[in-house]
Amino acid sequence: MCRWLAYSGSPVLLEDLLYKPANSLVVQSRHSQLGVETVNGDGFGVGWYGAEDTPGLYHCTEPAWNDRNLKELSAHARAGRVFAHIRASTGTAVQQTNCHPFRHGRWLWMHNGAITDFPVLKRDLVLAVDPDLYPQIEGSTDSEVFFFLALSLGLREDPPAAVARAVGVVEEVGRSHGVALPMQMTVATTDGETTWAFRYSSEGRSRSLFHSTDVSTLRQQYPDNPVLHDLSDDARLVVSEPLGDLRGAWREVPESTCVVVREGNEELLPFGPA
Amino acid sequence: MCRWLAYSGSPVLLEDLLYKPANSLVVQSRHSQLGVETVNGDGFGVGWYGAEDTPGLYHCTEPAWNDRNLKELSAHARAGRVFAHIRASTGTAVQQTNCHPFRHGRWLWMHNGAITDFPVLKRDLVLAVDPDLYPQIEGSTDSEVFFFLALSLGLREDPPAAVARAVGVVEEVGRSHGVALPMQMTVATTDGETTWAFRYSSEGRSRSLFHSTDVSTLRQQYPDNPVLHDLSDDARLVVSEPLGDLRGAWREVPESTCVVVREGNEELLPFGPA
Amino acid sequence: MCRWLAYSGSPVLLEDLLYKPANSLVVQSRHSQLGVETVNGDGFGVGWYGAEDTPGLYHCTEPAWNDRNLKELSAHARAGRVFAHIRASTGTAVQQTNCHPFRHGRWLWMHNGAITDFPVLKRDLVLAVDPDLYPQIEGSTDSEVFFFLALSLGLREDPPAAVARAVGVVEEVGRSHGVALPMQMTVATTDGETTWAFRYSSEGRSRSLFHSTDVSTLRQQYPDNPVLHDLSDDARLVVSEPLGDLRGAWREVPESTCVVVREGNEELLPFGPA
Amino acid sequence: MCRWLAYSGSPVLLEDLLYKPANSLVVQSRHSQLGVETVNGDGFGVGWYGAEDTPGLYHCTEPAWNDRNLKELSAHARAGRVFAHIRASTGTAVQQTNCHPFRHGRWLWMHNGAITDFPVLKRDLVLAVDPDLYPQIEGSTDSEVFFFLALSLGLREDPPAAVARAVGVVEEVGRSHGVALPMQMTVATTDGETTWAFRYSSEGRSRSLFHSTDVSTLRQQYPDNPVLHDLSDDARLVVSEPLGDLRGAWREVPESTCVVVREGNEELLPFGPA
Repeated sequence: MCRWLAYSGSPVLLEDLLYKPANSLVVQSRHSQLGVETVNGDGFGVGWYGAEDTPGLYHCTEPAWNDRNLKELSAHARAGRVFAHIRASTGTAVQQTNCHPFRHGRWLWMHNGAITDFPVLKRDLVLAVDPDLYPQIEGSTDSEVFFFLALSLGLREDPPAAVARAVGVVEEVGRSHGVALPMQMTVATTDGETTWAFRYSSEGRSRSLFHSTDVSTLRQQYPDNPVLHDLSDDARLVVSEPLGDLRGAWREVPESTCVVVREGNEELLPFGPA
Repeated sequence: MCRWLAYSGSPVLLEDLLYKPANSLVVQSRHSQLGVETVNGDGFGVGWYGAEDTPGLYHCTEPAWNDRNLKELSAHARAGRVFAHIRASTGTAVQQTNCHPFRHGRWLWMHNGAITDFPVLKRDLVLAVDPDLYPQIEGSTDSEVFFFLALSLGLREDPPAAVARAVGVVEEVGRSHGVALPMQMTVATTDGETTWAFRYSSEGRSRSLFHSTDVSTLRQQYPDNPVLHDLSDDARLVVSEPLGDLRGAWREVPESTCVVVREGNEELLPFGPA
Repeated sequence: MCRWLAYSGSPVLLEDLLYKPANSLVVQSRHSQLGVETVNGDGFGVGWYGAEDTPGLYHCTEPAWNDRNLKELSAHARAGRVFAHIRASTGTAVQQTNCHPFRHGRWLWMHNGAITDFPVLKRDLVLAVDPDLYPQIEGSTDSEVFFFLALSLGLREDPPAAVARAVGVVEEVGRSHGVALPMQMTVATTDGETTWAFRYSSEGRSRSLFHSTDVSTLRQQYPDNPVLHDLSDDARLVVSEPLGDLRGAWREVPESTCVVVREGNEELLPFGPA
Repeated sequence: MCRWLAYSGSPVLLEDLLYKPANSLVVQSRHSQLGVETVNGDGFGVGWYGAEDTPGLYHCTEPAWNDRNLKELSAHARAGRVFAHIRASTGTAVQQTNCHPFRHGRWLWMHNGAITDFPVLKRDLVLAVDPDLYPQIEGSTDSEVFFFLALSLGLREDPPAAVARAVGVVEEVGRSHGVALPMQMTVATTDGETTWAFRYSSEGRSRSLFHSTDVSTLRQQYPDNPVLHDLSDDARLVVSEPLGDLRGAWREVPESTCVVVREGNEELLPFGPA
């Protein structure tokens, strides 16, 4: 299992997101509080939208807590959209091509969870990927195949519908192989403007997911908290677990829900397989 | 493109094979003489048959010339069957799961060359792999898919026939996608007893391949050469390029040929796609 | 801080030491029970005495739990003397030259603990190293400087006396810089025959250290335990923490003690700085 | 030996410097034309001055030609001062702490060449480093010790004088140990504003060094060359070897010379040990 965060708002230094919070993602890499595994040391990745068309990616197979280059990059790169992910492998190899977020054009994708019995289901799932997209699958994870399924099923046109269809395919393929509860997921995806985050599992007991609340309200409640003053009013975070214990700062995303974050507003939609 | 060696004979220290020859594989990693690329620095691998049932594997993504662990392992491991490979990537990621030799049970496989336009052909080739074997494909190279094709087509029963069939599939899939000359290869495979090496390409202009000649004859010709005294009479090497310039020590393997090395004898058979 | 084990006895597969015990060193790399840090993921190392004069070393900067090459090596290398160490860096870089065990000729050395305020003391400590040995210091850890101090002060002639002198130098240099309690250590060293292990700290509250008890007695107590049947009567382990919960199998080494393991016997000697 | 480039001018994407030129540094990492070694695959580093006070550093032990993260960073980071270096180790370990450029506060330093018999001279050279700076030496290279010597001898106040003194110390220590010609160097250092580059060797036969000529003149000569149009008039490069074969674009730096690049002007000063 893994931990991740998705930021949108005015440009911030990556280190403000990845290192400075009390329970930052780098802290979670060694001591996650809500994860299935306390240690998420099997590589990490960051995707950030700078001045260029395509987001930048930094993928590394070392634990995040050790990586000096991540610290350097984080101290120098600013971005208004940031995806970051720390990995706890469920068996597939620790290699850069298995690090999240995955990228396709302007799109990023990251996943916490697993497709149960993925080795058994993999061939059928891969066959459901658009043959034109298939050669671009680089790694060996369930998460990347899930991304390519969603891309094949319309992610770029209608993300919630495409993810619902992809989950539907996974559950159908699972059932056909006798895997009763194949999907466990929190997922985030973005085109660099809007962020869509999903919490779902076949068994209805999904991994934790939270979104931050309105920054301007928080600022009134905690006028002395310096972190809040650095954030723009439209800043929003969706995270696997809260980055600190400021009361009222985090709201749990309900089961079977899609969170849409756009221009400082979040909208919660019911989500289920199609 | 890549360089490789396949040794069979009485147990030797790996360093005698990998470091001591004048044009050793480690030297070739930086300055290959006959390779398409002079630098083969995109990872390497060694497979060796020790006392255990399954051969050991050491795969690393660094250049072989740098790797201290390879030097240590080579100074301490002895084996009577050794496969070693240095990689020059033709585009796929530099990661351990893309390092040769690949292993399946007691079998090892390594490849120099490429399947032309592999991204275009990959899906059809992967579909031709036995679905029960498919989940064991770990990396993203053409070489590993080729191995799994051969396994699917009977490698463990009749290696020359299975490789011929696998080449046949590749050429057929190639043609169906308009790739006229899809296969370029020298390949070695072994079950730990016999070694089979193949030189073939669709265009009939294959990468170089050599086998060593009879050690006892060489020893008579060069009574003062200490290297020859450490080798048993049944020692044989099949290599991408000679490990030194001892005249008479190396014989080029002809085009479209399979070399079978067993108990100190080599047999050359004509080889072509089935 | 770190965790380590030192084995002596009849040759065993490394995996019997590193992977098979319930609380093996590889398990401890992610979830140590008695360590200052639960995660020891900042590299690891193994030293083993095979057929060659000099022990082999395998050093890696990845977490031990991830390393496929360690698994392969462990499944194929047998040795009658094994040192293994998993690292939790106290600040110095994660690099192979900082991985324990350190080697000098036939000698190995590994350390759990730290020299307090090492950056402040380092220059004076390094100046106390024999100038002829000085150029062989490759890394940047306190542990390696400590090893070279001991080598400079007679490790190869009288290990307990040399380590006592080295601790004396560290404490003297510490005091001269106002560092009241500079040394925290469990240390093991061997020449491939005898193993010397030390538990000591300036404050008298040292990291945990245990040695295994007589195997033949254990075998009588637990006639059905298969692990015990694979070990020779003279097999002995000295470890940072027990590898399992077999009652009576482990005895804590007292504070300020040197354990000498030789030919299946252990001797406990009082230890203090000279 | 190594290859490097030092850029100053208006902010450019790092990829314009590192990837786009015909004989870019990434190309040189595999096929250097003027280097002592054609392959510079033992790690690399980039230092860049962005919006923050301290330059960013990216150090990696893999060959530059392989590194996907370098490609990503280069496609997203813009800087008006860039130091980049590819390494061919002369024996010291391939690890991040041995990658150039080295950093101290706002200062960067990189070196091509070697201090002859460095293991013999190292202790005396290290003793000449300011004890307050000594603990900040992290790696094991001659180049980093040279940097700390220069820092100890006034680099931040008067770079040419400090480097002259540091070379003087190296040559004096060398002579005292019977090393006749201890210094071989091209070096670049910067405070983020001015760049100082040095070409010198004890034997008077130094590694190659070039600086670019006036961009506005070049633009007149080659009105159709698009690369020149992206560069500001004050853009200047100092390089180990030309990045392309545009006639008139590169001027060799004479032996025993210091080049000072400031605000689009270069000044050449005689240089020798003090």
